[in-house]
Amino acid sequence: MFITFEGIEGSGKTTQARLLHEWLIDNGYEVILTREPGGTPAAEELRKFILSEREEKFPEIAELMLYMAARSFHVQNLIKPVLGSGAIVISDRFSDATLAYQGYGRGLSLKEIKYLNNLATEGVKPDITYLIDVPVEIGMSRIKGRYHDRIEKETLIFHEKVRKGYLKIASENPERIIVIDGTKETEEIFEEIKKTIERRLKNGI
Amino acid sequence: MFITFEGIEGSGKTTQARLLHEWLIDNGYEVILTREPGGTPAAEELRKFILSEREEKFPEIAELMLYMAARSFHVQNLIKPVLGSGAIVISDRFSDATLAYQGYGRGLSLKEIKYLNNLATEGVKPDITYLIDVPVEIGMSRIKGRYHDRIEKETLIFHEKVRKGYLKIASENPERIIVIDGTKETEEIFEEIKKTIERRLKNGI
Repeated sequence: MFITFEGIEGSGKTTQARLLHEWLIDNGYEVILTREPGGTPAAEELRKFILSEREEKFPEIAELMLYMAARSFHVQNLIKPVLGSGAIVISDRFSDATLAYQGYGRGLSLKEIKYLNNLATEGVKPDITYLIDVPVEIGMSRIKGRYHDRIEKETLIFHEKVRKGYLKIASENPERIIVIDGTKETEEIFEEIKKTIERRLKNGI
Repeated sequence: MFITFEGIEGSGKTTQARLLHEWLIDNGYEVILTREPGGTPAAEELRKFILSEREEKFPEIAELMLYMAARSFHVQNLIKPVLGSGAIVISDRFSDATLAYQGYGRGLSLKEIKYLNNLATEGVKPDITYLIDVPVEIGMSRIKGRYHDRIEKETLIFHEKVRKGYLKIASENPERIIVIDGTKETEEIFEEIKKTIERRLKNGI
């Protein structure tokens, strides 16, 4: 079972991914928690490269290619082997994020991104995706105090496009993506997630 | 004017690129010499990433995406501005190399690579390309003593495919690619290159 969490900065997705990870372990499941970009030593190196600020202009196409390269390491060297062993994989972000950020956010071709995603993931798709949705102002106010990477420093308008993009992707994939109101309390959100996961685990997927 | 040099390891292309660079400077031209992967600080970082050996398996798709990302930095932040200023750019390898190595060498889709090359180069194409052709055994024997990177350590069969790929690309682009017999003496090869370049410069391209 492959579970992904998506959402804009400050949505609370990372907290929820951690809670689910702990809860599944407590219930006797074999499960790993990973993230994108990242998840393997090579992909984590690329994460640093992608998110750090540099003097040089960062072409949008280079950004896109680097996310795909990191995803390819992640899928081939971590996600596929772990899923193959029968364990559950939880990833904090996956291919929907590239559609939302580089596609809807930066305006790169969605068709192109889907094509590249398919190459990079070798067809691996999440069984279930939680989109933790919050208004941009709320997300941004939550991450106010902490260090901001290159993507987090983008304009509010950019993050607004990403949020709308995520909701669009969710509306196109209702069988896979569950949209959760991220303005609720952490515990309340997690109860919702737990309920849907329990149902899936009982039904064998 | 954008001039590229291509060829397998040990073909002598780097030496010829340097000789041409010096000769053009001596003749009063503004010219820069650059290389792929690399050419800008970000692209050189990616070069290190691509060519270094690592514990982790290196997926072919990740390799392809990384070459494209490095090319995108190179084109947008160096090649385009320099060509725009009216200077000559000489690059030790460019987009043909990805077709030869990842396409003909690794067996990735040529159509896919051409499509990605087009994205990464934003349509920038060399005006003239020198393919310095040598048999694989000669190329390999020339680089015998020195340190070998991840790509250079590939099998002879791989390099044979790359060489044939290069020759195929040349036969499909006779108006742009000049094939040079790389088994001749350095000076003799350079005389050939000089002759073709002098003719082009006289004709204004």
